[in-house]
Amino acid sequence: MKEISIGLIGAGTVGGGVVKVLDKRIDSFRNELGLNIRLARVADKEISRFKTLPVRDAVCSSDAYDIINDKSIDIVIELVGGTTFAKKVVLDALGNRKHVITANKALIAEHGPEIFDCAGKNGVSFYFEASVGGGMPVIKSIREGLIGNDIYSVKTIINGTCNYILTRMSLEGLPFETVLKQAQEKGYAEADPTLDIGGGDSGHKVAILASLASGGYVPYNLIFKEGITTISREDIAFAKELGYTIKLLGVIKKESGKKELDVRVHPVMLHANHILASVSDVYNAVLLEGDAVGQILLYGRGAGELPTASAVVSDIVDVARNISGNNPIRIPMDYYSEPKTIPIKPVVDITSRYYLRFQVIDKPGVLASITSYLGNDGISIASVMQKEGAKDGQVPVIILTHTASERGIRSSVSEIEKMDYIKAKTQVIRIED
Amino acid sequence: MKEISIGLIGAGTVGGGVVKVLDKRIDSFRNELGLNIRLARVADKEISRFKTLPVRDAVCSSDAYDIINDKSIDIVIELVGGTTFAKKVVLDALGNRKHVITANKALIAEHGPEIFDCAGKNGVSFYFEASVGGGMPVIKSIREGLIGNDIYSVKTIINGTCNYILTRMSLEGLPFETVLKQAQEKGYAEADPTLDIGGGDSGHKVAILASLASGGYVPYNLIFKEGITTISREDIAFAKELGYTIKLLGVIKKESGKKELDVRVHPVMLHANHILASVSDVYNAVLLEGDAVGQILLYGRGAGELPTASAVVSDIVDVARNISGNNPIRIPMDYYSEPKTIPIKPVVDITSRYYLRFQVIDKPGVLASITSYLGNDGISIASVMQKEGAKDGQVPVIILTHTASERGIRSSVSEIEKMDYIKAKTQVIRIED
Repeated sequence: MKEISIGLIGAGTVGGGVVKVLDKRIDSFRNELGLNIRLARVADKEISRFKTLPVRDAVCSSDAYDIINDKSIDIVIELVGGTTFAKKVVLDALGNRKHVITANKALIAEHGPEIFDCAGKNGVSFYFEASVGGGMPVIKSIREGLIGNDIYSVKTIINGTCNYILTRMSLEGLPFETVLKQAQEKGYAEADPTLDIGGGDSGHKVAILASLASGGYVPYNLIFKEGITTISREDIAFAKELGYTIKLLGVIKKESGKKELDVRVHPVMLHANHILASVSDVYNAVLLEGDAVGQILLYGRGAGELPTASAVVSDIVDVARNISGNNPIRIPMDYYSEPKTIPIKPVVDITSRYYLRFQVIDKPGVLASITSYLGNDGISIASVMQKEGAKDGQVPVIILTHTASERGIRSSVSEIEKMDYIKAKTQVIRIED
Repeated sequence: MKEISIGLIGAGTVGGGVVKVLDKRIDSFRNELGLNIRLARVADKEISRFKTLPVRDAVCSSDAYDIINDKSIDIVIELVGGTTFAKKVVLDALGNRKHVITANKALIAEHGPEIFDCAGKNGVSFYFEASVGGGMPVIKSIREGLIGNDIYSVKTIINGTCNYILTRMSLEGLPFETVLKQAQEKGYAEADPTLDIGGGDSGHKVAILASLASGGYVPYNLIFKEGITTISREDIAFAKELGYTIKLLGVIKKESGKKELDVRVHPVMLHANHILASVSDVYNAVLLEGDAVGQILLYGRGAGELPTASAVVSDIVDVARNISGNNPIRIPMDYYSEPKTIPIKPVVDITSRYYLRFQVIDKPGVLASITSYLGNDGISIASVMQKEGAKDGQVPVIILTHTASERGIRSSVSEIEKMDYIKAKTQVIRIED
């Protein structure tokens, strides 16, 4: 049985989880799967991290290059995070003909083509199951389990922090800032939460899913991303009253016969009986639609020490199976390349139903003015809600539209916002079916 | 690029779906995956089936052995169903050193050890993703995506016919027989529905999942199976009133430190906010719990032409990848063998919460008598519901228990049923958390 040597770079939360899961399973991998996997080396700048892990001192190092330059290492696991040192580590490891496994979504979304190109040139594989959806085998499902399908739609709740915040806001009627603070205290949100609440983290994951589903390269920086920071408790309360739930959703839609891919991340209103509406707290879900399989949902914890480690370890076993079968490039990844860049549909070109919340002065003629602007842009109104009881002479006017163009909505809203009866920025939330 | 030749035996619903999906994808498998897959032969006794399929006459045959004895065939797909001719086909194909793919859950559940043994001896692989959960990649998830986990619990709604019937009964308040008839008219239930509504089909799938999750052989005939034929519309209405939904559930539980596996199929009451309670109509779901990953749910269509074909085609690509990489036995299956038979916990040894419906004469002392028998067997009552308005002098008495032993429940119920105030067979439904 050929020994397969692993070098782990980064022994933080996920790295520590990988060490623990491997420690528990390594005997069964040998006895039941016939795979002789060995955790040969672990590197981390912060050597204090080794103390709490089941690793012998002899395998520990403070220098990642002790692993990258070690000829006996077959697989390098990059769990340092970020896109600077991590990129160097990954490219140098691939350049030394080591298979690489990562959980680094930002790295793939922002530098995917360079990395996959480097893996291809060196005849080694690059695995990244843990980059999207923690322990959910979503990448394996798209690349293998659903390979007989054209995946033409993906809708996903893929950021646990945002889902936790929106769930708590909905259940407790609290404002965004209060819940964010609670989430930070519980460790569900970072000290600097921008990447999560701004939609960037979801965007990274959606860029990867979009690339896999489309068989081409979907550049992260071209994806429309809108976060949850402007969602107010009023919006959540109105949504509830109308039978909807607000979620941060990643959306990928292929339209038949069109080259452009519709890819975006933004808050949506989902009808309460939508299957994704019940995905709560830190849970994630990916709803895939394929031409043969129909709807498939994967649901689970999208982050955390052990769920993410579970995904990394599944990659280790996959790569080990490939190595011991002398079939290192079992799943080609050459489509993740610059020449296969997929054109993205500009968000102004989409159509959707919309929730609009105008904050207006409570005086005659306002509703007539708003609806007339909307009518001029060809936007048909499905329902209007205006309640009694103005505060400081102001009331919210809620309008749900029928399917309308984003361009029309933006044009109307910008015209309406010039009116002196408008007292705050208008809230626009897309409704997803 | 090595050509990989496929012989398909059985061109019925699923077989036809496989031909259609392959026809659509075969070019992209060549161009994008580097796999030169060819549907070389199709066999079916009913040669009229070929007419509607995109296959040339030259590849069609009425004799399965034209495929099994064809030296150029690499992969045989068995989609004839049943366990007699199908078994012969599979064993003979494996014996001729062909890789075999099947959707035949009964065959695996009832003859697994013989088949896997035969595959092992001949150095070929046996794939069966389509045997459980239609297009959901549940077998791949357990054997690959979640390989870093000890899967200690599986709860699954895995028979679309039963789920459709129970959903309709709940939504429309109709009795079992009426809905069964409707399901038969819509093609959701067979003319002879016994295998579905009796729990046998769920049992086949649960036997396969239990074998995969436990790493041993779980004999189908030892699994406790109870169908949905005794579920009345009254039970469904009472369940709803109490905040529960009735589902036919497959349950697999490993208890730490115990050798016996708790495996069973029976109706359960699920609290309305349980994640499986919202799985409706013909949809299936598998809720897996692993020591690293936590809860993972897969949800999708568990049957049908194209969803099942999607799973078969994913197996074709997997086996083709193994063949072209000279790594035919990538995933060892030797644990599915007689010597690794897993002992099953007798259902009388389980504990659960219970829903009991006694049909009694409306007279003083009945409730006292029932509760006293339950008390004597150590069964603690959580709630009692008895409504006004006896019909023919009879009323149902509903009792929900706290956690109790199955043995105690059976003993009490059998004693209580000897009383002359009992007017019908007592309904016992386990409550699953």
